[in-house]
Amino acid sequence: MQKVGFIGLGAMGAPMARSLHRAGFDLRVWNRSRARSAEFERDGIPVADDAAAVAADRDAVIIMVSDPSALAAVLGGVLQGLPEGGTVINMSTVSHAATLAALKAVQAHGGYFVDAPVSGTVKPAQDGSLVILAGAGAEVLGRVQPLLDAMGKKTIHCGAPGQGTRMKLVINLMLGGMLALLAEGLNLGERGGLAPERLLEAVGDGPLGAPLYSVKGRMMLEGRFDKQFPLDLLFKDMELLLQEAAGHGLPLYVSAAVREVVCAACGAGYGDEDMAALYKLPVRP
Amino acid sequence: MQKVGFIGLGAMGAPMARSLHRAGFDLRVWNRSRARSAEFERDGIPVADDAAAVAADRDAVIIMVSDPSALAAVLGGVLQGLPEGGTVINMSTVSHAATLAALKAVQAHGGYFVDAPVSGTVKPAQDGSLVILAGAGAEVLGRVQPLLDAMGKKTIHCGAPGQGTRMKLVINLMLGGMLALLAEGLNLGERGGLAPERLLEAVGDGPLGAPLYSVKGRMMLEGRFDKQFPLDLLFKDMELLLQEAAGHGLPLYVSAAVREVVCAACGAGYGDEDMAALYKLPVRP
Amino acid sequence: MQKVGFIGLGAMGAPMARSLHRAGFDLRVWNRSRARSAEFERDGIPVADDAAAVAADRDAVIIMVSDPSALAAVLGGVLQGLPEGGTVINMSTVSHAATLAALKAVQAHGGYFVDAPVSGTVKPAQDGSLVILAGAGAEVLGRVQPLLDAMGKKTIHCGAPGQGTRMKLVINLMLGGMLALLAEGLNLGERGGLAPERLLEAVGDGPLGAPLYSVKGRMMLEGRFDKQFPLDLLFKDMELLLQEAAGHGLPLYVSAAVREVVCAACGAGYGDEDMAALYKLPVRP
Amino acid sequence: MQKVGFIGLGAMGAPMARSLHRAGFDLRVWNRSRARSAEFERDGIPVADDAAAVAADRDAVIIMVSDPSALAAVLGGVLQGLPEGGTVINMSTVSHAATLAALKAVQAHGGYFVDAPVSGTVKPAQDGSLVILAGAGAEVLGRVQPLLDAMGKKTIHCGAPGQGTRMKLVINLMLGGMLALLAEGLNLGERGGLAPERLLEAVGDGPLGAPLYSVKGRMMLEGRFDKQFPLDLLFKDMELLLQEAAGHGLPLYVSAAVREVVCAACGAGYGDEDMAALYKLPVRP
Repeated sequence: MQKVGFIGLGAMGAPMARSLHRAGFDLRVWNRSRARSAEFERDGIPVADDAAAVAADRDAVIIMVSDPSALAAVLGGVLQGLPEGGTVINMSTVSHAATLAALKAVQAHGGYFVDAPVSGTVKPAQDGSLVILAGAGAEVLGRVQPLLDAMGKKTIHCGAPGQGTRMKLVINLMLGGMLALLAEGLNLGERGGLAPERLLEAVGDGPLGAPLYSVKGRMMLEGRFDKQFPLDLLFKDMELLLQEAAGHGLPLYVSAAVREVVCAACGAGYGDEDMAALYKLPVRP
Repeated sequence: MQKVGFIGLGAMGAPMARSLHRAGFDLRVWNRSRARSAEFERDGIPVADDAAAVAADRDAVIIMVSDPSALAAVLGGVLQGLPEGGTVINMSTVSHAATLAALKAVQAHGGYFVDAPVSGTVKPAQDGSLVILAGAGAEVLGRVQPLLDAMGKKTIHCGAPGQGTRMKLVINLMLGGMLALLAEGLNLGERGGLAPERLLEAVGDGPLGAPLYSVKGRMMLEGRFDKQFPLDLLFKDMELLLQEAAGHGLPLYVSAAVREVVCAACGAGYGDEDMAALYKLPVRP
Repeated sequence: MQKVGFIGLGAMGAPMARSLHRAGFDLRVWNRSRARSAEFERDGIPVADDAAAVAADRDAVIIMVSDPSALAAVLGGVLQGLPEGGTVINMSTVSHAATLAALKAVQAHGGYFVDAPVSGTVKPAQDGSLVILAGAGAEVLGRVQPLLDAMGKKTIHCGAPGQGTRMKLVINLMLGGMLALLAEGLNLGERGGLAPERLLEAVGDGPLGAPLYSVKGRMMLEGRFDKQFPLDLLFKDMELLLQEAAGHGLPLYVSAAVREVVCAACGAGYGDEDMAALYKLPVRP
Repeated sequence: MQKVGFIGLGAMGAPMARSLHRAGFDLRVWNRSRARSAEFERDGIPVADDAAAVAADRDAVIIMVSDPSALAAVLGGVLQGLPEGGTVINMSTVSHAATLAALKAVQAHGGYFVDAPVSGTVKPAQDGSLVILAGAGAEVLGRVQPLLDAMGKKTIHCGAPGQGTRMKLVINLMLGGMLALLAEGLNLGERGGLAPERLLEAVGDGPLGAPLYSVKGRMMLEGRFDKQFPLDLLFKDMELLLQEAAGHGLPLYVSAAVREVVCAACGAGYGDEDMAALYKLPVRP
């Protein structure tokens, strides 16, 4: 059985680490703020003292942190501890540039790198039913597949290292657009006297029926905008992709309009709220 | 058992009429071009000679034709034949103005009017699993519900007559936007080296996974653009709703960008192809 | 000297009629509300009792009213009075469809039609320095040129009847866009600490320096939004042209975004204010 | 009389340096590629051997180079030679970040910094009629004003160091939008049968008549797209400002659409052509 280190025991990381433990892997965990490791310790799961210690003698180390700077910070420690030929699996969603920087650092150390951000949020993390978007060489992916299988229901091999992250960002670009469309549809419907509940029902029962729409639509109607994916992060992801598209000379007329709408929502003070807050944007009469 | 007339035996109408027949209703049908009635005649289903005849002595007449002018044309005949107190159920998707004109004509005749466009295409029409978006008074809807239940798996009561059509148009506005987003996502992904099949898979397995995306995505990748819902009709629907939104002083920044993209696709000669042809739009290097 | 009838003595029409009088033409005027003719009467200029009377025995009748319905209303009377072979010169800005309808009515009467909307507002109307955008056959235009020369500094022959109006609408489309750009530039500059007066100065002294920017820029900074060209009329003109562009399959990505911004301004309650009110749109912190 | 160093003898810099010489200033020049200094040498104007030498004993050094990296490269040399208390005047158009970096470097050296990009191109540079957009402390600006007066007809004091650059970028944002509008207007007019020459005439003679439109409009009609301001540089400027606007939470719906149009033009292969090439963008029938 592979020996695994796990870094980042937040809302997503904790249940993912639990899944690995349940699946019988030799697991050691670490979290930057100690409090979150307590319940792992209580349950007999070894807790390391720092990033280097969590990586020592491990076949693979999984990182699930919140942003590029946290990734860079823990990666330094990991590379001090990780044996040569070990594998770093970054499951955090970061920019493409940050992913390539991590890849380079790991390779310089003589290790292997997999970027494997996930599609799905807390619930599927708890159920072990995440969809994992992996960028990795085929052989390396084969070796870590059992780990990924413990956490997700499916792994999509998106290409070489870096492509998992790219896939995640393209998904987020579409996701922002879909939210903006839902907000426009709901607002237009309401002006014309359609009950928003009925609109959500019609969307959900027909060909447009994405799970996203039922979850976010309900939040919109209930006026709950506690963040799961806040607007200012969505804006950053969109910005990155519009710049990349520009590098290809590819106009994205629709996504560019979505970017401005998200910008307006951030300017209206909703940047730290969930992206469902796009619904609040239009001036109400 | 209610006596029903059915007008419009096209790709959608024919299987819907069959569903009514199977459910045991006393059915009489008519189609403007005679050819399409032949197989109904062969199967012993009475075929009328004109719109007035199909409506004579019926409790309700269902109309499923392709555009507002066809609706207006058959409605005149229907009102000559329909007994006072009969109900006209228009299931064709037409503009809101055409719906209100039909409503007025039917009411002037002393009849009841239901607008009941459907969400879903040929396959659910054949399975009797359409979602029906009904605009009707509650009592009238109650009376025709058994008919609708024979054709669809669910009826969403959208409000007074006219609101079913409005709902359908809002759905189509979002649908056009979702298609445009998919085209942008696929094109951007491909420029960055993502296999489009993997992108569709990642979309389909996650929160964005609408049935629309798997159906239209496959058409895009296979280069099949035979029309189910052609771009020029999509353009007309979007135009109608953007005008309505303007009447409310409601800006729809994203949908307005979609409108231009659809316009460009029509200008590029894809107006008579399926809306999946949006994928072909960006200049390929 | 040609005998001329003039209909519409508003802010634009009155000084234009004065210019014709000063130039020595045999002038007769009429205005729907009598009050406005009083000072013409006082100055010895014949005032007719109705549209037919103003047109009787005239070589040409000039119409300068505010909208298509006013045009249609007075045109009926004019055609009752106008001798066969007379010319109707519509200088009001109306839709292309209204222009073509007027053309048809005049031709059916055996008359000639010129559409000649103007570029410029009250000041150039008073100075006789308007730019006139004429749609007319070459011979007809030659005949009425002396009249136009009395009112404007220049006539641009845009093509056959109808093309003057088309030119005016294209100008208005660009005008709306330029206003929106000025509003965006001023708002962005202010967020970055640039004094708006300095920005107007830099715009005015360089290659971007259109007269429009100095006039409207000053209104924006002084918070004066009394209408010269109100936002809801601008919206109508833009709508007409975006529909026409769509008919050509020509996407106008930028103008479509302007349309939404104008729509938002109307929705925010500025529809009856001058188009300079676009400046007020962005949510202020 | 002040002692002045001048760096950058390109299409803009050479005539600007000439203007300083004509005005009687003690001038020393330098250009990275030697060829361009030859005619200055021939005319008896001292030519330095490097950036440090051009700055030695000077009261002020003026830099007019093509991009941020050239600015950074020469600035290092300048600061080696410039006496303490000397002034660096950067007249190159660079990003706001590059301007602030230069400001910091100069201040660290004990010098004064003025950013003074210009509005206008080669012709006004030759005539000494540039409009100069200056960011500087009031006292510093007073000291260098005689130099600026030799090169330009007017200096607009935009604020503290950095604000001249900001003003220039806002002007460029509007400029890109105006070009895109002109392209849309011309394309729409042509589809409707309006001669583009007439449209340019109507624009030029009325309130929209910016010098930009006559210059660029002529290039569009003559099919000349030799770069004066190429599309890929315009794109970079727009990108910078849209990012800044996003930082303020200020949506720029129109400029964002312009950005995509410019992106499409770059993608179509026009990035290295003059921005007038926007006219070529729409698919021709």
